[in-house]
Amino acid sequence: MSDFSLELKKAVKGEILEGDSIPAKLLTDFVGTLKGHADVYLKASGRDDVVAAVKLAHRFKVPVVVRSGGTNLVGATVPEGGLVLDVSGMNKVISFDEPTMSITVEPGITLKDLIAYVESRGYMYPPDPAEKLGTIGGNVAMNSGGMRAVKYGVTRDYVLSLDLVRPDGEVVTFGRKVRKNATGLNLKECVIGCEGSLGVIVSVTLKLVPLPEYSLSAILAYHSLEEGIKSVNVILGAHLDPTAIEFQEKKVIAYGEKYLGAEFPVPSAVAYLIVTFDGTKDSVLERLEKCESVVKKNGAFEVVPLTDPELAAKVWEIRGALARAVKATGPWEPVDTVVPLDEIAPFVASVNQISEDEGVRIVAFGHAGDGNVHLCVLKDQISDSEWPARLDRVLRLVYQSAYDKGGMLSGEHGIGKAKRRYYLEHANKDERELMLKVKAAFDPENLFNPHDGYTL
Amino acid sequence: MSDFSLELKKAVKGEILEGDSIPAKLLTDFVGTLKGHADVYLKASGRDDVVAAVKLAHRFKVPVVVRSGGTNLVGATVPEGGLVLDVSGMNKVISFDEPTMSITVEPGITLKDLIAYVESRGYMYPPDPAEKLGTIGGNVAMNSGGMRAVKYGVTRDYVLSLDLVRPDGEVVTFGRKVRKNATGLNLKECVIGCEGSLGVIVSVTLKLVPLPEYSLSAILAYHSLEEGIKSVNVILGAHLDPTAIEFQEKKVIAYGEKYLGAEFPVPSAVAYLIVTFDGTKDSVLERLEKCESVVKKNGAFEVVPLTDPELAAKVWEIRGALARAVKATGPWEPVDTVVPLDEIAPFVASVNQISEDEGVRIVAFGHAGDGNVHLCVLKDQISDSEWPARLDRVLRLVYQSAYDKGGMLSGEHGIGKAKRRYYLEHANKDERELMLKVKAAFDPENLFNPHDGYTL
Repeated sequence: MSDFSLELKKAVKGEILEGDSIPAKLLTDFVGTLKGHADVYLKASGRDDVVAAVKLAHRFKVPVVVRSGGTNLVGATVPEGGLVLDVSGMNKVISFDEPTMSITVEPGITLKDLIAYVESRGYMYPPDPAEKLGTIGGNVAMNSGGMRAVKYGVTRDYVLSLDLVRPDGEVVTFGRKVRKNATGLNLKECVIGCEGSLGVIVSVTLKLVPLPEYSLSAILAYHSLEEGIKSVNVILGAHLDPTAIEFQEKKVIAYGEKYLGAEFPVPSAVAYLIVTFDGTKDSVLERLEKCESVVKKNGAFEVVPLTDPELAAKVWEIRGALARAVKATGPWEPVDTVVPLDEIAPFVASVNQISEDEGVRIVAFGHAGDGNVHLCVLKDQISDSEWPARLDRVLRLVYQSAYDKGGMLSGEHGIGKAKRRYYLEHANKDERELMLKVKAAFDPENLFNPHDGYTL
Repeated sequence: MSDFSLELKKAVKGEILEGDSIPAKLLTDFVGTLKGHADVYLKASGRDDVVAAVKLAHRFKVPVVVRSGGTNLVGATVPEGGLVLDVSGMNKVISFDEPTMSITVEPGITLKDLIAYVESRGYMYPPDPAEKLGTIGGNVAMNSGGMRAVKYGVTRDYVLSLDLVRPDGEVVTFGRKVRKNATGLNLKECVIGCEGSLGVIVSVTLKLVPLPEYSLSAILAYHSLEEGIKSVNVILGAHLDPTAIEFQEKKVIAYGEKYLGAEFPVPSAVAYLIVTFDGTKDSVLERLEKCESVVKKNGAFEVVPLTDPELAAKVWEIRGALARAVKATGPWEPVDTVVPLDEIAPFVASVNQISEDEGVRIVAFGHAGDGNVHLCVLKDQISDSEWPARLDRVLRLVYQSAYDKGGMLSGEHGIGKAKRRYYLEHANKDERELMLKVKAAFDPENLFNPHDGYTL
């Protein structure tokens, strides 16, 4: 037993596991391909545990990987020795403040619990990542996006303030409960999306909005994905204020259907858009009607409003389960490219070409309204020995295509360990040099997620 | 003549002025109280001039203050020796990209010209700072807010990417033309609002939205400011999706009326809210009607929709001219506090108390929908010798009240030189320590705006 873990046991209240007694599921991410190892695991019982553990890690120069819901898709929770600091047990609502329409929570609260809490009080937390078992701490650390980004933006846009335990164990508060802030460099914005590389988020104050009176989605059915994608700019330009515009190919939806034993409407379609509107009921119905009229002139052969709550729930359940459904088919690699709005269809076409050329199945779905295209690369029958090299080749081609089209590696999942090598191929060197200097400003010993994302 | 200016003359095409030949108006800000001095002034003719000048400044260790429209209110363009780098001549639209609904501009383009350019093409640039002669470079450097922040957010929310000439003269691009980005630390967010302390912004790509079909404002008249402010949360909570909610006291409006020789509606009111809605015409009219009904139950004694375009233009002209109108009355000091939404009325009450106790006139107006309260502290008949100490005392009391109420020093103007001492009184020391380290990561020689805002 190391001096570090001896001291840690004296200093904290939370559960500690060591070496081989740490279950493998606490050393990986949601994909499960990358397997890590750690010397010590701590399930923090609260902020004091985090501060004590970080101070000790700093003293003993022990690397730290923070984990919470463990739903990340890029290996950002895969340790290479050192301490796994699990904040998933810190899952309380600290305060709900109706007059300022804000809520302060611990990092381990799941999106599911947060949504239930605020919706029962008449408010909405607008970011809507598909994985509802992810936690707010993780969402902030990755700047998670989600389906409502078209109208409401991403996690970043709702973080009023946060408390960070710095790599030396000091707690720093960034921001206050104010809606605008031009008081000095906005470092809160650096912490959001840092993938755990700048410290441990121990509380977050989020901005809420009044729960819309009414929300309605509709399925738009197309004979090809390209026609569907072409509709997106039409919808965006038609003053319809959509909340979400998702695109799905039928072949992808089939995974969700099979996984859940449920059926999607308009089975004859090759591709779908799912659009959502919210607001007053009259306004929603008016915009949906207008949407139907413009998309029918632009390739949609059927429009199915999801007015039946059961059908609506089923559709979103299938959409939400796509990653799990694909995972159930065997080894897979998720990809989170983002491209300019006018490059979605050309990019998906290039991906289909890569898939055909390389003989590797790739399915595409995602957030058409903001250019965030999710791919799943599937192992299928490719042998274990061949798979890593085939996958690597496919990923290189896919990212090259995204960057060639003015896109970037990640819209909302982050870089992590899984995408690190591809990021480094395309990184703007001058920008990364500054990232490393900023990392050093927070973490001069490079202890926090030292092998993750943009880091050294 | 210094070696630096000799070399500079050889390296650039833009106009150069030296020492006493630099006009005083190029060495101050919009307020005009702080007067700076510089060795050299360069009106950059383009990006090459900026790169050449910054490289030379770096070589000769010459401090640099960037200026553009010169409309800032906190002394961020007041040099203390060294080079004034004026980018106001770099004012072109570089490209307008309709399919991605974005525009790339040089930093010196005025908000007025940008608005005219995009609106004539059916698009809106949503941030709406009152000062339309400010430039985009300045807006990005200060993270300017404006009147539409309630619905649309601030400058930060519309910057897709920017090119920064780093303090060593290298050009770094942050971001691409994508709507989401989780690819490494988001340093673009640090540059936005840095007050020129991290380098020179030489181009900016902005996200646009389709120009709303219809927009309508209304004046809500109250017998007291407190009643008006109480209405704000009612409006925000009533699913009305307002674009702007401004508050004005009649005594403040009087400055604008006198300045422009125009008259505001409902002269019997003590305070006004101005609310704006945009969207489809039906939806706007419906929301305004609902607004009228809820505010009349909450203290508004009259509601005047500004359907007459002439009246609407006059009202916004008066609102937009308030800073100029107040300036015309003599020496003044603008204040840009931001407080939590439920603290606006208590904060304004405390300001009125300070004004009475100290015998110094303070007028309050601002963005009620986001808690950003602008004050003007007026010299009036106070003697020149007494004024600095009286003003200092008032500012200390005002900022203390804002911080006591959970607020901050600046919502959208920044800190600059004028507010630096008050910022330092309230700064979170751990946060500022990190700001200084991040500043050093970009600017190790501390050459850019070295005496401004949060800097050393």
